[in-house]
Amino acid sequence: MNFTLDCIANTAILLIDCPDRKGIVAAIADFLYAHGANILHADQHQDNNLGLFFMRVEWDMDGFDLSREDLPLQFQPIAERLGMRWRLEYSAVRPAVAIFVSGSLHCLVDLLYRHQSGEFACTIPLVVSNHSQARPLAEFYGIPFHHVPVEQGDKTGAERVQLDLLERHGVDLVVLARYMQILSPEFVARYPQRIINVHHSFLPAFSGARPYHAAFERGVKLIGATSHYVTEVLDDGPIIEQDVTRVSHRDQLEDLMQKGRDLERVVLSRAVRWHLDHRILVYGKKTVVFD
Amino acid sequence: MNFTLDCIANTAILLIDCPDRKGIVAAIADFLYAHGANILHADQHQDNNLGLFFMRVEWDMDGFDLSREDLPLQFQPIAERLGMRWRLEYSAVRPAVAIFVSGSLHCLVDLLYRHQSGEFACTIPLVVSNHSQARPLAEFYGIPFHHVPVEQGDKTGAERVQLDLLERHGVDLVVLARYMQILSPEFVARYPQRIINVHHSFLPAFSGARPYHAAFERGVKLIGATSHYVTEVLDDGPIIEQDVTRVSHRDQLEDLMQKGRDLERVVLSRAVRWHLDHRILVYGKKTVVFD
Amino acid sequence: MNFTLDCIANTAILLIDCPDRKGIVAAIADFLYAHGANILHADQHQDNNLGLFFMRVEWDMDGFDLSREDLPLQFQPIAERLGMRWRLEYSAVRPAVAIFVSGSLHCLVDLLYRHQSGEFACTIPLVVSNHSQARPLAEFYGIPFHHVPVEQGDKTGAERVQLDLLERHGVDLVVLARYMQILSPEFVARYPQRIINVHHSFLPAFSGARPYHAAFERGVKLIGATSHYVTEVLDDGPIIEQDVTRVSHRDQLEDLMQKGRDLERVVLSRAVRWHLDHRILVYGKKTVVFD
Amino acid sequence: MNFTLDCIANTAILLIDCPDRKGIVAAIADFLYAHGANILHADQHQDNNLGLFFMRVEWDMDGFDLSREDLPLQFQPIAERLGMRWRLEYSAVRPAVAIFVSGSLHCLVDLLYRHQSGEFACTIPLVVSNHSQARPLAEFYGIPFHHVPVEQGDKTGAERVQLDLLERHGVDLVVLARYMQILSPEFVARYPQRIINVHHSFLPAFSGARPYHAAFERGVKLIGATSHYVTEVLDDGPIIEQDVTRVSHRDQLEDLMQKGRDLERVVLSRAVRWHLDHRILVYGKKTVVFD
Repeated sequence: MNFTLDCIANTAILLIDCPDRKGIVAAIADFLYAHGANILHADQHQDNNLGLFFMRVEWDMDGFDLSREDLPLQFQPIAERLGMRWRLEYSAVRPAVAIFVSGSLHCLVDLLYRHQSGEFACTIPLVVSNHSQARPLAEFYGIPFHHVPVEQGDKTGAERVQLDLLERHGVDLVVLARYMQILSPEFVARYPQRIINVHHSFLPAFSGARPYHAAFERGVKLIGATSHYVTEVLDDGPIIEQDVTRVSHRDQLEDLMQKGRDLERVVLSRAVRWHLDHRILVYGKKTVVFD
Repeated sequence: MNFTLDCIANTAILLIDCPDRKGIVAAIADFLYAHGANILHADQHQDNNLGLFFMRVEWDMDGFDLSREDLPLQFQPIAERLGMRWRLEYSAVRPAVAIFVSGSLHCLVDLLYRHQSGEFACTIPLVVSNHSQARPLAEFYGIPFHHVPVEQGDKTGAERVQLDLLERHGVDLVVLARYMQILSPEFVARYPQRIINVHHSFLPAFSGARPYHAAFERGVKLIGATSHYVTEVLDDGPIIEQDVTRVSHRDQLEDLMQKGRDLERVVLSRAVRWHLDHRILVYGKKTVVFD
Repeated sequence: MNFTLDCIANTAILLIDCPDRKGIVAAIADFLYAHGANILHADQHQDNNLGLFFMRVEWDMDGFDLSREDLPLQFQPIAERLGMRWRLEYSAVRPAVAIFVSGSLHCLVDLLYRHQSGEFACTIPLVVSNHSQARPLAEFYGIPFHHVPVEQGDKTGAERVQLDLLERHGVDLVVLARYMQILSPEFVARYPQRIINVHHSFLPAFSGARPYHAAFERGVKLIGATSHYVTEVLDDGPIIEQDVTRVSHRDQLEDLMQKGRDLERVVLSRAVRWHLDHRILVYGKKTVVFD
Repeated sequence: MNFTLDCIANTAILLIDCPDRKGIVAAIADFLYAHGANILHADQHQDNNLGLFFMRVEWDMDGFDLSREDLPLQFQPIAERLGMRWRLEYSAVRPAVAIFVSGSLHCLVDLLYRHQSGEFACTIPLVVSNHSQARPLAEFYGIPFHHVPVEQGDKTGAERVQLDLLERHGVDLVVLARYMQILSPEFVARYPQRIINVHHSFLPAFSGARPYHAAFERGVKLIGATSHYVTEVLDDGPIIEQDVTRVSHRDQLEDLMQKGRDLERVVLSRAVRWHLDHRILVYGKKTVVFD
């Protein structure tokens, strides 16, 4: 959890995954200690079946004797020796997030308020929608709103406009906050593991369209919501978070939708927060979410 | 809830479903009042979309002026006039339950202890298994154990033996407590809405074999269990109860199985209790569970 | 659940509680049937220990042959004969709700959006606050904002202003959406069972001030939130709804607060919705919440 | 999670807590690497407010070049230099657990079956009870049963017998599986952080006697159970695990008890498992439970 860090201007986060072998932790700990790192959080995970090692370590850049320029250069030899995939993030660098939304605004309302109240370590340079309802809300929070209609048969044209917007604003993460258009594989390929969607079911149950209708038909006793990274295959990307709530025979379809909206909000906002805190590592179809 | 009724020797339970129309409740309430019924519980449900009405009413037979023989005769005209499907149950009549089990005994352990401690209003005249591990446990609880091996390619022979056992013991309900054989359509047809299974996933996700393996592969963040009535189609019958528990990247396949066993127990035992308390009405693929 | 009723302009809701005895349901059902009521929902509850009977029944006023004026007159004799406390509500009459808030806006944000999106069957004629932060938000949703500062030692003066506002706007329900002032017994007495508060703990644990601090000190593994009717005794009124979420040693105080905010929102909004749908009956220190 | 380790005969677990400072992880990782440790699990926690550091690391003793005799000797200087409290545990050494029980057997049933099925890495040399009902169950699982009645006014005598039994069997952990006698401070002092109790409420709510009665009176909407280490102050020890389940106005006192029993079982069994897997560190009134 990172709330106590909000007051610390300047931390570095190192994320690695590599084949498991002896000496990884020693190598990293020695490196950080040698350069005076005051470690604030460290978490690791081993998948003993697959022989994989994962680590997230966060330290204070104050008192650390390597600059942001030197740090990767100095760490690179260690990473190479141990066959690591790795990346470095800095809390002082706030990622830019674009929110895509359609006609249902409950997730957007939630995300914008959380952002305003300091829950998200990011900037939100734009809200994009194929509808216009979200405009007043975006503008209330001082965020530019872009209406990009998706004409029947010309998704490509709309996506060209969207991608151009994303590029111009240097967007790092796209959040689909109940955006009801399917992105093309080309779009998805441009933002690998950087598009987060919320699907209104407990995946893999009820993937695809109208999951509440399907859940209602099937007579389930719990409904769910799932946030995940978007991949080429619909509703199939690595799951970040899921939650459920109880329903009964008394709940009509509209009740499922109403209860589901509360799930969607929390499930999506957790995923966004964890991504922005650099807590998520993807491997294969799965996520490691460091807590 | 029925625990306060345990001390009452003698209640009647009327379960009905019918097309919704005016006057149903008045007709039933007047009938019961006219015959001196002291109503202990009443619950009703309307599916306003389908125009259906469901009711469960339970009253004390002491002070009621119709005998068990006369009651159905007197109620029949009302039921006919209003187009009801209906049945009458009596708390004094304890259903006979057969438990089928294979090699995993956690559900059986749970069911037998609950039965002994008075949670289930039934008798358990037999435990049936295609393995032999369950014998000592069944015998500890004083319940006859029948080993009915299912030979490769001769399920029919095994089912003939099983059906014969069920008939001889006057079994009303079959509980599949992690019984790992698929029952034939012929077997299922003999006990419609009277076979309860527990499936170790959150249906409809991960139906079929090895659901924990599939959940582990998919990287879900919650695992579930489902109890349902068995129908011809595997894992497709009306759902009675479901529950889930949280898992993380730290949970290996064995952890999912261990956590799942705790879910299976509670989900199956609730279904059995509700069935025995005559709280469940099936309509289409769904259940109404009166509480 | 009432969502399917949103399209029905005109329903009546009868809520009763009385000593349990034979013939209550028959009397009510006969009365409604005689006057042509198309019953949409009915739910009842018996407390067999205390010998109490509770009922909520909702029907369509279209096709019902009594007017809103005649209905109570005609029902009164039945109620008297059976010793009922009762009230009649009409879906066409939208209660007026005042929201009180202090510096934390997360509940207000949630309530106002839910209201706008149609989840609450009410009007919100005013937001009252002892601080000024909420003004832009209230005004964005088009709701008049009243800043009523509470000066040290002059709560009485502030409450006089507040009560005057409530009276002028014909307020039926006061919602304390993280309003951090304790209302005087005189204020509470003016709105019995018509003030809903959210307390940020799982009551009765951690009543009073700074519950998250207390929970953090105690090292609990779950934190909670509670919505309840306000009575003279602090945090002691009848509980309407509670929910919890898991925390671990990794969660610092700030994490508890952040997770708790999500609980507070849902727990308060459910209470408000149920109250507005006339689903809650208070008896003694408890609530019956018809679903 | 430790299930994948079941097949590994021989792991060491190091648990430490100390003031947080630079170089702790490096010192431990270097030490383990230098002696050829194949680390299987490592987890650490920092309490940045209190400036404390906690760690649990588990490695394979096969291929490790220090014996169980040499390991503490070699590690001692590091621990001293860094001001650590520490202990070493070995998976090959199965702790001896005594279960204390009174008249309610639901937790005992659960614990004994879990033990038999391999969920607990311990031996259970005895079951102790002030009643006699548990005898057949204990004996079914092949565990010696000791009936130690607690005469009114002579708890001291009973505890002398109990302590003697514990000593003779070399007991490491006492599990109070709904044992309804309060242990004396002298008894508790003999097994610090080695007595686990389950209390049938969501502590600190409803501590003391008859918590379900108190919860029922208060009209809560969730009930809970808590497992904790026993200290001198009743129901006040460090909490290990808690869970809750939903109740409604329909649940009578007996329903609360029935639902609560299911909570007690899982909450107690998790605490026992985590203790036996050496995952719990106590500091002040709190626990760190490494997962």
